[in-house]
Amino acid sequence: MDLTSYQKEFLSYLENINWVKEPENLYKPIDYILQLSGKRIRPILTLMAADILSGDFKKALPAALAVEVFHNFTLVHDDIMDEAPLRRGKETVHQKWDLNTGILSGDAMLILAYQYFENYEPLIFQRLAKLFSKTALEVCDGQQLDIDFETRNDVTIEEYINMIRLKTSVLVAAALKMGAIVAEASEEDADRLYEYGLNLGLAFQLQDDYLDTFGNPETFGKQVGGDIIENKKTYLYLKALELSNEEDQQKLEYFYNQKLEDNSIKIEEVKRIFERNDIPSLIQKLIEDYTKSSFSILEEMNISSESKQNLKDFGTFLMARNK
Amino acid sequence: MDLTSYQKEFLSYLENINWVKEPENLYKPIDYILQLSGKRIRPILTLMAADILSGDFKKALPAALAVEVFHNFTLVHDDIMDEAPLRRGKETVHQKWDLNTGILSGDAMLILAYQYFENYEPLIFQRLAKLFSKTALEVCDGQQLDIDFETRNDVTIEEYINMIRLKTSVLVAAALKMGAIVAEASEEDADRLYEYGLNLGLAFQLQDDYLDTFGNPETFGKQVGGDIIENKKTYLYLKALELSNEEDQQKLEYFYNQKLEDNSIKIEEVKRIFERNDIPSLIQKLIEDYTKSSFSILEEMNISSESKQNLKDFGTFLMARNK
Repeated sequence: MDLTSYQKEFLSYLENINWVKEPENLYKPIDYILQLSGKRIRPILTLMAADILSGDFKKALPAALAVEVFHNFTLVHDDIMDEAPLRRGKETVHQKWDLNTGILSGDAMLILAYQYFENYEPLIFQRLAKLFSKTALEVCDGQQLDIDFETRNDVTIEEYINMIRLKTSVLVAAALKMGAIVAEASEEDADRLYEYGLNLGLAFQLQDDYLDTFGNPETFGKQVGGDIIENKKTYLYLKALELSNEEDQQKLEYFYNQKLEDNSIKIEEVKRIFERNDIPSLIQKLIEDYTKSSFSILEEMNISSESKQNLKDFGTFLMARNK
Repeated sequence: MDLTSYQKEFLSYLENINWVKEPENLYKPIDYILQLSGKRIRPILTLMAADILSGDFKKALPAALAVEVFHNFTLVHDDIMDEAPLRRGKETVHQKWDLNTGILSGDAMLILAYQYFENYEPLIFQRLAKLFSKTALEVCDGQQLDIDFETRNDVTIEEYINMIRLKTSVLVAAALKMGAIVAEASEEDADRLYEYGLNLGLAFQLQDDYLDTFGNPETFGKQVGGDIIENKKTYLYLKALELSNEEDQQKLEYFYNQKLEDNSIKIEEVKRIFERNDIPSLIQKLIEDYTKSSFSILEEMNISSESKQNLKDFGTFLMARNK
């Protein structure tokens, strides 16, 4: 099966769920955020993993849903923390309703995610819930580090990579491993898919960082330069700080201590420093390295070459995206 | 064993847990809120239930901790929603740190609660986690109804009782049932303890409502009249509205549409209306009814009369409290 088929299957499963019950003010926001079109990358990975390892993707649908609902829970709470008014071009939950609704609906989503595992028998249930709790806590750790980094001026590239591993990669990895658990695959295969996901997730997030600054405004979907405006110490910034001359370093530090009304000059100047120091090709190289690492992990797996190719195609697709 | 022994055992278990790990900004608030002395009613009930039904309370300690950590998670997020600066006389988490810390540390606590169930084997784990998810979602429903009621003028007593059942009672009931699950008691006994807890929880919350208005300021621990200041449509208010003459009804509705700087006259007047309409004895009667219902459920249980007495003593203790 190809990517779009998994996506279609997941979306039709999602559509048939009746989210809204009493009290409506709690559940309508959940329906709202889950209907906002996203790429559905994580649930697709869960279905793919189960399909590859057992030939049955359907039994992985509840686990895939748990992953997607959890991911959307993090979006709702993160948007509050980031004071973001928009998500995928639409109002965020706390913006459309209010702060309390954002907090409480998010809480309910985290609990709902656990409930979907109840579709599985006790042993599978426990393995899924354990992996899920570990992952969810790591995502919280990652979010906290992201917040901590905002006010620190000594963040290293290693720390940054660790932060995005926690905030983004572990969920991608867990999505795959959950598919393997549902498929009752060997511990070895499950762990390899997890490692594949960790590397893919890092490549994915670095690609996100790249697009945020160097994406095409016409295809990117959100404001190009958002990370620069927010003074986010991404790989681009940290690597530029490491490689540039004193003048550029000072400029970078100057700009990243400002919150401006008009950001056009700031974005232009920072981009120029990045380009002067060859950062775009360095990050592309790093993305390629993580993608290659993920592919080499697949090679060790005891699955058909067609399955390997499907997983690689997904990686290639993720890295080729322009939004 | 008596109440204080269970409490002591729980507190020493709690003390030996090392909450604080990296990133500290995420885990320090968790340590802080869990150290603030509370009555620890819910974990005591879990330990008592397990002890009564299996003679071993120790194996229920992780489940008791899950309940207490979950309860504290609700406090952290509810305090944000209520904009409460103080909890048990100390600063609330979002007040001491900030909004984002309150949200994220709360999220982590909800996940940690699930992790404590990992101490049990798969079948017990699944039963605990299922009951926990159901309960946690009901608590969210109750919190949402509580918020909804703030802006509604047609709340019935039945709706109010349903709201406190969800917001407070189901967790008391689940705390007991978790003890029964860990003790591998019969489904019947577990369900009876749950019913006992539901009734006890209602009595407990109504007693809370009573104390909030009629408690002795010297022993109550928080500001007497807080619910009146906040215009909370508790049983006291709803029953008074039902029974009073037109003049008192108008006065009540007038006062409950005001947010005032100086609340002394409002509190005095509302209390007088409550007293004039015999509400204090009516709520005491209702508390007694729920307490008696809870005791009669115990009678049907296949446990020693000493155990029944212990559970009743706990109920009596809860209703006799003055804070």
